Amino acid sequence: MSHIDKIDIAARKKVAEIFHKKFSELHEEISKENPPKLEIPMRTLANTVFDPNKGILKLGIRKIERNFLNMNESKKFMQTLLMASIIYQALVENEYPTIRDLYYRGKHTILYKDLNGKLKEENTWEEQSESDASIRDVEVMLGLLREDMLILSKEKGKVVGNMRIRSGNDVIDLSKLGHGAYAIESTPDLIEFLDYDAEMVLVVEKDAVFQQLHRAGFWQKYKALLVTGAGQPDRATRRFVRRLHDELKLPVYILTDSDPYGWYIYSVFKVGSIQLSYESERLATPKAKFLGVSMSDIFGYGTKKAYLSEEERRNFIIKAKDVDIKRAKELMRYSWFHSKLWKREIDMFMDKKAKLEIEAMASKGLKFLAFQYIPEKIQTNDWIE
Amino acid sequence: MSHIDKIDIAARKKVAEIFHKKFSELHEEISKENPPKLEIPMRTLANTVFDPNKGILKLGIRKIERNFLNMNESKKFMQTLLMASIIYQALVENEYPTIRDLYYRGKHTILYKDLNGKLKEENTWEEQSESDASIRDVEVMLGLLREDMLILSKEKGKVVGNMRIRSGNDVIDLSKLGHGAYAIESTPDLIEFLDYDAEMVLVVEKDAVFQQLHRAGFWQKYKALLVTGAGQPDRATRRFVRRLHDELKLPVYILTDSDPYGWYIYSVFKVGSIQLSYESERLATPKAKFLGVSMSDIFGYGTKKAYLSEEERRNFIIKAKDVDIKRAKELMRYSWFHSKLWKREIDMFMDKKAKLEIEAMASKGLKFLAFQYIPEKIQTNDWIE
Repeated sequence: MSHIDKIDIAARKKVAEIFHKKFSELHEEISKENPPKLEIPMRTLANTVFDPNKGILKLGIRKIERNFLNMNESKKFMQTLLMASIIYQALVENEYPTIRDLYYRGKHTILYKDLNGKLKEENTWEEQSESDASIRDVEVMLGLLREDMLILSKEKGKVVGNMRIRSGNDVIDLSKLGHGAYAIESTPDLIEFLDYDAEMVLVVEKDAVFQQLHRAGFWQKYKALLVTGAGQPDRATRRFVRRLHDELKLPVYILTDSDPYGWYIYSVFKVGSIQLSYESERLATPKAKFLGVSMSDIFGYGTKKAYLSEEERRNFIIKAKDVDIKRAKELMRYSWFHSKLWKREIDMFMDKKAKLEIEAMASKGLKFLAFQYIPEKIQTNDWIE
Repeated sequence: MSHIDKIDIAARKKVAEIFHKKFSELHEEISKENPPKLEIPMRTLANTVFDPNKGILKLGIRKIERNFLNMNESKKFMQTLLMASIIYQALVENEYPTIRDLYYRGKHTILYKDLNGKLKEENTWEEQSESDASIRDVEVMLGLLREDMLILSKEKGKVVGNMRIRSGNDVIDLSKLGHGAYAIESTPDLIEFLDYDAEMVLVVEKDAVFQQLHRAGFWQKYKALLVTGAGQPDRATRRFVRRLHDELKLPVYILTDSDPYGWYIYSVFKVGSIQLSYESERLATPKAKFLGVSMSDIFGYGTKKAYLSEEERRNFIIKAKDVDIKRAKELMRYSWFHSKLWKREIDMFMDKKAKLEIEAMASKGLKFLAFQYIPEKIQTNDWIE
């Protein structure tokens, strides 16, 4: 396939070599007639630690051994090996599987005879949860993310701004996209940052707010790279934002609804997912700042004036539901929500039992949102870390 | 805001004039001391007709009258007028509200005295369902869609292909987007089609399949404009596809999972939503073809060979659930599913009670999907209309 670009080919080659090296070791052990086994870093919560220096969740040092000759472990051993071989094959054949594809590719029935010579059958896996677990095993075993292995996911992140990037064989000018936007690819590490004229990254939770700020010309005026993850962000959006922060040294601000779900989205950008801590080292942006909407934006605090009038509060505020309270209590347990400002934010929420959608701010006028609220918050450092 | 483009300004002006003209009539009636009333086309199912010539659902000729001086109608009368005034204001002030914004913008409490002089209060609306209904009233009253009024929605449609478009002040080459894609704007009528080298439009239900075909170079090889609506398509994606069909005279093929939900997605592209038939005249693509995955692709039919082997069927097929059967029965009622081929398709489904995801086809290899399955189906006219 002639259209395939050099960066892509180079990425495949590098990763295929890592596979080759790792599994050659296994092959060697088998040649020596040693019992086959795999060493895999533990992915459980018990082996998840918060690194306060880096500000991210990551895997601890504990590993598990998976032995082929142990009856309890042999199925998982084979699943992991099956998955590794499918991924390797996809790499060398220029395929771009999704995790759902990988499930189907590996799904088949194995016929075997038991100790009594009776014919039996067993499926490699039944549910995608099993094949997904095997993918995660391969990821942590090799210290690679699925994106490195050219595995695609559904992508929904978008970006616009004064920046040129190279993706595949094309140079894309992210400032020349009309009213539309650039849909960020599943493999953001293959993107090359060429040049830019930007001073910050603004990530907005909601796609429609992204569009509004885009049309208002926010990113031109304030030299921002404008990003949305359209709700709960996917991996590619998180990695893309992290790279903007690391490589361009730009501050990252996150704008969500004022409620525990919005805080959680911020948390995912900042620290990563608790379930999948091994991703965090690559996907999280520990220095991301929560720009708002904050409780003090709604109610004011000390000398800070509220952005909403009494009447607006009456019309716009939504009463928190039990599920919001429950989520807030969960978040309070995480150490990165233990800062003074976060404590104040969550306390105010628990006290007022009030939440607010970003659209309520937008309804005060696009000019208010784009040219007053957001820039004022940034200029006065009115954000929470 | 200097960045705003001419097309945008012209669109606003045109629509604002339509508002002005319509509501001047009302104003005139009031000046003559006639009781204020609005005439609004009925949006109920009873006033929805299927036009077999055009192949779309549309509103019939029945209208309702809404009188300000009728106690039962005055609240709705005022809601419609309130919404029209908010939208008009947004138009002239270069705003891009979302429907959620419009809800917030109009939400307030009206104080009034009842016949006994007692002070009472009433909210303009409580739920967004009420303000949304007012938006629909304004749409059918003025014969405009919300997109014409520069109201934004969440957008998730994407496109790549050999085509250049103009959006805003920018020219975008949809063939130069690397591994990413162009996120279609909320107001696709503002897009200008410049030039293209394409022979068909291929719409794929799933975002990840879109990415796979994109990376495989499908659209280069087969001169396709490749589109995804990422599941249930939004309005902008439907309008964009319709425009590609109408203006470029390109055939439109739709590729979904093989199940009643996939058929429903096809139906939305082809005929429109049953609830909102007034949109169909602008959003539906009656000549869109269902390319697959079809039941005969899975099982074969007559002389047609199945694309799956016996073993693949055993591994890949998912048993239909009750909800699938129920949905299939619903679809059978719609006249556009009464063709011979659709009858056969649905009968086979009811008989086999089997469904298949497109990923199962993709798991046979990206080359199979991109360079055998899809082109072969198109070349042999193996689709359903």
